[in-house]
Parts: sequence; structure tokens; C-alpha cells
Amino acid sequence: MSTKKQISKIKEVVSFYNQWPKLNNPDLNGALLIVDEVLLKNAQFKKWSSQFTLIYPVKSGEQLKTLASFEKHCNAIFQLTQSIKVNSIYSCGGGSVGDFAGFLASVWRRGVSLIQIPSTWLSAIDSAHGGKNALNLVNVKNQIGTFYYPDHVLIIKPLLNGQPQDRIFEALGEIFKIAIINGPTLWKKLERIKLWNTDSLWKILPDLVLAKYVILQADPFEEKGVRQVLNLGHTVGHVFESYFQIPHGFAIAAGLEFALHWSVAEKILKPQAIEDIFMSELWSQWDRLHLKSQVKLLHYENLLQIPIKEFSYLIGFDKKKLGNKINYVFVEDLGKTIIKSVTVQDIVKEIKRQNKFFNEN
Amino acid sequence: MSTKKQISKIKEVVSFYNQWPKLNNPDLNGALLIVDEVLLKNAQFKKWSSQFTLIYPVKSGEQLKTLASFEKHCNAIFQLTQSIKVNSIYSCGGGSVGDFAGFLASVWRRGVSLIQIPSTWLSAIDSAHGGKNALNLVNVKNQIGTFYYPDHVLIIKPLLNGQPQDRIFEALGEIFKIAIINGPTLWKKLERIKLWNTDSLWKILPDLVLAKYVILQADPFEEKGVRQVLNLGHTVGHVFESYFQIPHGFAIAAGLEFALHWSVAEKILKPQAIEDIFMSELWSQWDRLHLKSQVKLLHYENLLQIPIKEFSYLIGFDKKKLGNKINYVFVEDLGKTIIKSVTVQDIVKEIKRQNKFFNEN
Repeated sequence: MSTKKQISKIKEVVSFYNQWPKLNNPDLNGALLIVDEVLLKNAQFKKWSSQFTLIYPVKSGEQLKTLASFEKHCNAIFQLTQSIKVNSIYSCGGGSVGDFAGFLASVWRRGVSLIQIPSTWLSAIDSAHGGKNALNLVNVKNQIGTFYYPDHVLIIKPLLNGQPQDRIFEALGEIFKIAIINGPTLWKKLERIKLWNTDSLWKILPDLVLAKYVILQADPFEEKGVRQVLNLGHTVGHVFESYFQIPHGFAIAAGLEFALHWSVAEKILKPQAIEDIFMSELWSQWDRLHLKSQVKLLHYENLLQIPIKEFSYLIGFDKKKLGNKINYVFVEDLGKTIIKSVTVQDIVKEIKRQNKFFNEN
Repeated sequence: MSTKKQISKIKEVVSFYNQWPKLNNPDLNGALLIVDEVLLKNAQFKKWSSQFTLIYPVKSGEQLKTLASFEKHCNAIFQLTQSIKVNSIYSCGGGSVGDFAGFLASVWRRGVSLIQIPSTWLSAIDSAHGGKNALNLVNVKNQIGTFYYPDHVLIIKPLLNGQPQDRIFEALGEIFKIAIINGPTLWKKLERIKLWNTDSLWKILPDLVLAKYVILQADPFEEKGVRQVLNLGHTVGHVFESYFQIPHGFAIAAGLEFALHWSVAEKILKPQAIEDIFMSELWSQWDRLHLKSQVKLLHYENLLQIPIKEFSYLIGFDKKKLGNKINYVFVEDLGKTIIKSVTVQDIVKEIKRQNKFFNEN
């Protein structure tokens, strides 16, 4: 029994545009553009967006994802669209805008078409395709949501070009993740990139999106355990992200590093293999890049200093539930992951071990 | 491309229980019961509901269906269920509780199982099966929602027995509707009921539910125009309901009467056929019953006195949009309906005509 909005074939969904695309007039009938307000400061974007009759700007960020702001926006959107029947929602922004607009599309008059137009590299690689959207309750992230795959994803080069160079480094976290999951072929392709900039990332983007689709197609609604591998680096990465308020991509890269070290300690990953990854041209570029970047990035060793009590809270458990089981993604090799059920206590123990190790070495 | 939660076969979904059923223990693992608080005053129900570990009482009514109260309830339910992973939601109540709990089930951690336990005859016949749920925005009903068919509908006789006799008369509005849609066989079966009480309604209930399922199965997501026939009597009925604050079932019966008269005026329904309906044993029972009933029911002719300006507002249009088209269900004969596109102006004109007719006759 199908319960959620299905995913279509990648070639029917994803389109890459080197230039600002002219959209089809019939498609824009009853179309509402929900857009990160920041983008409207860009004159080129503003001109392009004038194809839409209905434009609703939002402020991006976690505040957008609360149920309280959802109600406020729904009322405002109802006022805005009173004379027109909205039958499609275009979402233009990063992760939070996509989450908000995706959820809205899935429940507005019991579901209208959804078109994602990612404005950040991170969302162009990852969240725009995933079909998962979510709102937060006061105390907990992503509790309310639906699976609702976009009908189309429009990836527009000049839109992505508008981002500062730092955002490319930020995207590298998810890029490492998908490359480790996908295997040596993609990893080697990435290694050949000597300079990470807009042009090189644009060129490799279709490969990265395809790697994500391979997993989504196999398990669109997280029912078969396949899609769980996408959590690689995220269990601990999310804690880093919340505690240090660092960008998602950096936190994921750190979470990935943690997962690789743990995989070696568990004798799942060979010491030689982790050496190969960390000494690779790709990983050392990351090291060089984030040192050069203007973003104040905390060293991985520092990330491990979070007090254990805070840590278990941020991972979603109070102290009494340290024995509760969660699925954790370990790495066996490039292209091979293993999911094992671990307790929060196990994770905490491993943090202490890595902490000690880095302090001693 | 399937977009919504599918409907299953009626025999896999609907179960009728003559007694309070003992539920299977494994099914109750992680089960949350959302219940109309009024029911907990009933000692029998209270005892039965103690099978559930997690019980969340709500106050029924339109207030339950606002986004603001949805947020409040989500937070409270999160607190209540913090130590248990909710994987199914049982909804026990009438239409508003079913709408609230159905929407919640469809978005709680991206969708959990839904079991509807209707506590009113109206919901046992109609809303518990329909798979449509909805919340209201400040200015507009049912703007936010999903299609999310229940995995099971449990129809429990002693629960329905708890209602006052008036509620049976209330249900008759939807019963007439489904019988007119379904055709002469069901209509005749209903005519054979000489006394409308709990026992006779319980006996005919499976036929009424089946008649609804025939339509739902043919068009579960209102994509093929088939399901639109269920709107018979509702376009104008909803206006009566809102304006006079009368029970849904009575408003629908009046809306049905309006639709039948209009169908004759449009030469769609033969004058003899409408005579047959109004003079039938079934319709005259309705007339006798609602006169006897304690509910202060307004006569159909009085319902037509709503000021036109109010009327067009309540039908969902401001005065400027009287030319906007909507689909209206006409009756050709028992078992035969015709959907025609009409303007709000057309409806208003017909109201004036019927109004004049009844004042003159």
C-alpha cells in the first residue's frame, strides 16, 4: 500500500540550466513562488522571478520551520492568493525554505504540485531531492512532516553562482558522504578536481545528484533500511551542528570523521583504508580549504569536547535513556557501509575514547 | 503517480462489533488514543479505553481544527509520548476529532497508522471512511489537509448506542444523500425500515458504508470527478449549516431538498420522480421524525431567507466573484446524478426563485 507521494525517474525530475530559464506560461498558471527574501536583493534574480504573478518571500532559518510561523504564513498566503487557485508551489531557497514550502505543498488543499529550485549548493546536492520535509515542535526538530517528492527540481547555475565561495566548502561535507556511500568511481572523479569552485562543482553536480537518486529510488520512504545509509556522519554531526552552531556541511564532515575513526576501532574499516581516505588528494584539499576559508571552523578534536550530558540531550535522549538503541552507519570501505544498532552509551564511550586519543597524540 | 495514502478493500478496513471489542495487544504497542473528552464520562467507554496506555482527550468542535490548537496539541502529545515511539493513532469521536486525528496521523513523524473509531452515526456512515482530513485557517474551512485513508475503521455498537435518539435523525441527511446516489435498491431497503432507532440503523449500516465505499474506491483522491457526487446537497447545505448553526445532517437534508427542486426546474429530474421521493414512506418518516424531534429544526422554506450577500460569502466567494464557476450535483433519478458547472449567480437566482415559489404556495 503506497502511503506517500512517489519519486519519479531522475531525468523526468531534475533539469540543469546554464542560464536563467524561461518558464512555460501554462506551468505558471496558479503558481506560487515561495522565496528566501535574501534572493530578491539580487537584481538578476529579481528580474527572473517577475515571471511569477504570486511571490511570497520568507526569512530562511529554523524559525521558518516552527508550527507557529507555519500558521502565520498560511494565513498570509491565503490572503495573497484569494483570487487565484494555487495549483503549484515553487520553492526557491536552501534547506529551511525547501522544508517549509515542501510541507506546505503537501497539505495545501490536500496537496498541490511542488517544484524545488535550490539556491545553495548544499540543497542542490541534497535536500531538494530527498522528498522529506519537516516542521519542528518547540522541543524537537522535524517531528511534523510528510514524504512529498518534488515534481521537478530546477538547478540554475547563475542562481547557485550567487553564493559566496565558502558555501562550496560547506557543501563538501555532503559531497564526501555521498562519495563514500557511492564508491571508488565517484570518489576518483572527485579527486581529479584540483580546484573547487563554481565551475568544477557545476560540472560534477549531475554525478552527485545521480548518486543520491540511486539510494532514493531504492527506498523512497525509508521503509527498507537502504535509505538509512544517508545518515552517515549525521548522528554525531547533528550534535556538533546544534552545540557549536556551525554550518551543516562542516558538522557533517566532522561527523563523518568520527564515523570513520569509530569504524576502524570496531575493526570494520581497515586502518589502511582510513589512511587512504584521509591522505587522499580530496580530503587534504578539504583540510587546506577550510583552513583558508573565512569560516571560523572548529577543529574536529575540539568538537569532541562537548559535555556528555549535553551530548546525550542533543542526540535526542535524556540521561535515563542512554541504553536506548539507535541505528548507526559504519564504513567498511568506499562504497560499503554497515548499519549497526548501538546505544547512546556506546556513542558516548566512543567519544571519550577518541577524545583521549587526540589529547594523547 | 500515486500521491496519497491509498484506500484498501472494505472488508480489510471496516469491522462491525456488537460488543466492546478486546483489541490485540501487539496492535496497541505504541498506540495513542485521541478521544473526544465527552466519551470519558461514560463508565463503559472509560473501562474499555483502559486498554490504551496513551490517551489524549480533546474537546470536539471547529476550534479543534485550527492550526493554532494543532500546534498546542502537538506539543502536549509530544510531552505525553516522549518515552514511547507512537506508531499508530486511534481516533475516537465524531467528525472534528476524526479530522484532527487523521491529519495528525498523516504528518506525525511523516505518517503513522490511523484507526478510526466513529462515536456518532454520522461519522460511522460518512466521515470515518472518506480519507479526507482537514484543518481550518482563520478565514476558511478545510484549507489545510491530506488524503490519508484509515488502515482500519472499528464500528462499535455500544459506543454508537451512547448517543441520544436525535442523532439518528441527524444522520438521516447523509443517509438520504447516499441512497439517492446509490439508487433504487438501497432506497427501497431503507423504505422498509418502519422505525428509525439504534437497532434498525445498526442493521442497515453495512449497506450504507458499502454505498460510500463504491464511490471512494472508484475515485479515492477526487481526481476523476466520480467522488464529486458525494457533494450532493452540500454546496447549499454547508451555507445553511454555517448561517443557522444547525447540525450537519439537517443542513444536508435541506441542501438535498434544494438540489431536488432545482433539478426539476432545470428539467433534469421529472416532476413525477420528485413527487415519488417526497411522498415516499422514507421522506415522510423524516418529516414526521424531525417534527417530533426535540431539535429546533428550521423549515426548508425558512432556510432560503438568508440574505444573498451573506450567502455568496458563505459559499466561499465575495460579491465580485459571483460569476465564478463551481460544480454542482443535480439529480436525474434515484441512482443517477449529473454534475454541471454553474456560477454562484446561478445559485443565487435559484434561491430567489424557490423563495418566491414557497411564499406564493
